[in-house]
Amino acid sequence: MLGKNRIKLIKSLEYKKFRNKEKLFVAEGVKLITSLSDSGILIATLIGTPEFFAGAGKEKEAAGEIIIAEEPELAKASYLKTPPPCIALCRIPDYSTEEISPMEELVVCLDDVQDPGNLGTIVRLAGWFGIKDIVCSEQTADIYNPKAVQATMGAIAGVRVHYTSLIRFLEMHKQGNIEVTGTFLEGENIYSARLPANGIVVLGNEGKGISPELFSSITRKIRIPDFSGGPGKPESLNVSMAAAIVLSEFRRRTARA
Amino acid sequence: MLGKNRIKLIKSLEYKKFRNKEKLFVAEGVKLITSLSDSGILIATLIGTPEFFAGAGKEKEAAGEIIIAEEPELAKASYLKTPPPCIALCRIPDYSTEEISPMEELVVCLDDVQDPGNLGTIVRLAGWFGIKDIVCSEQTADIYNPKAVQATMGAIAGVRVHYTSLIRFLEMHKQGNIEVTGTFLEGENIYSARLPANGIVVLGNEGKGISPELFSSITRKIRIPDFSGGPGKPESLNVSMAAAIVLSEFRRRTARA
Repeated sequence: MLGKNRIKLIKSLEYKKFRNKEKLFVAEGVKLITSLSDSGILIATLIGTPEFFAGAGKEKEAAGEIIIAEEPELAKASYLKTPPPCIALCRIPDYSTEEISPMEELVVCLDDVQDPGNLGTIVRLAGWFGIKDIVCSEQTADIYNPKAVQATMGAIAGVRVHYTSLIRFLEMHKQGNIEVTGTFLEGENIYSARLPANGIVVLGNEGKGISPELFSSITRKIRIPDFSGGPGKPESLNVSMAAAIVLSEFRRRTARA
Repeated sequence: MLGKNRIKLIKSLEYKKFRNKEKLFVAEGVKLITSLSDSGILIATLIGTPEFFAGAGKEKEAAGEIIIAEEPELAKASYLKTPPPCIALCRIPDYSTEEISPMEELVVCLDDVQDPGNLGTIVRLAGWFGIKDIVCSEQTADIYNPKAVQATMGAIAGVRVHYTSLIRFLEMHKQGNIEVTGTFLEGENIYSARLPANGIVVLGNEGKGISPELFSSITRKIRIPDFSGGPGKPESLNVSMAAAIVLSEFRRRTARA
């Protein structure tokens, strides 16, 4: 049985304050939880229906605690419209930005991306394109927000998401001669610009783009060309669509799939 | 004053049945409505606060009917969390697939894309990349769903979205020697595949991809290479992210911005 207090705990993890206090985040659904258990993420508590546990494998073994619950209880605890057969409380991992080496990998920086869905989508894209580290400004949405976690579709297991001062992070690496590419509405055409295989690529806030205080750290400004022209011309691309196009273009140039 | 019946009408337009009956759809917010009034979309009724109308220009002149309403009334009628200063009831345009010429333009076909948000995002992308026509299977989400309309960010004004039998549409054009490119998890690497400047590109359903009954109409299968490999490897890209990457790659090859 799940119990009232446990449901209350799960619901409280919608808020960053409680996630930070408990050092836990919520993941829902078989696919996502299986991805997490395949990676280094620790599952503190695994809650599921008897049917789920009858079929569960590694994820059951990996969990610190098992709770068998009935569907109505899971429905009460769930953040999803269609409650899943299992919910996991996972330990928030502790990553260090010292492990990041933009000299040897392509690192994505996010400057105040606000929407948890956009953030989760970008992490999913990063997973697809083999990005290992995403460095977020402190004002960026929290990747452990339940909506962001679900939007990663499991990629949160393979991509390390860090939070730090972007100014300091970029300045430090600029001194190490790392190329820092920023996406703007004005800049070199991404299709013809020289793009490095490794280094840092910065994506900005949904409405405001990249903050002016980061401009001096950016060594190359690129833009995604706009092919429209008629009425209803969109003013910009959503940041997660821009991320899709930018990461695709970096990988097309520099890696072999 | 907006009045109860009008609010009821607006709310009923969440449902396709009522949209089809009234031949109307809802658009909210200054930016979106301005885009629509700049295009050929007819604004039957424009509802706004006195402050909105004090600043309104062409969109006011273009509207068939003007209703001045107070914020609390707009809040009751709105589909948005933060009610906008204006709501428009727009005439659903009547497009003919006969106007489409994949010999001279790049046409996007959507096979059962289910989520209105994904559909709206794809229309926004299409607007950015200068796509004029999107042909949807009859099971694809309705572009006049309020969520889809808002997600287009105005691009619905410049992109014609058609609904028809995709099988028939593709078969007809295949006989005209039009290249039909389909996106799959298996296929030629999109980065090295030959892509035509014009023709048709097909994107599939979120979960199931492209329906088997369309396979015989597809002349080239492409895939977006996956650069991941570690844990949490995403199984697929969301259809709107795939659209971003595919349209970017077609335009990179074949057009000049």
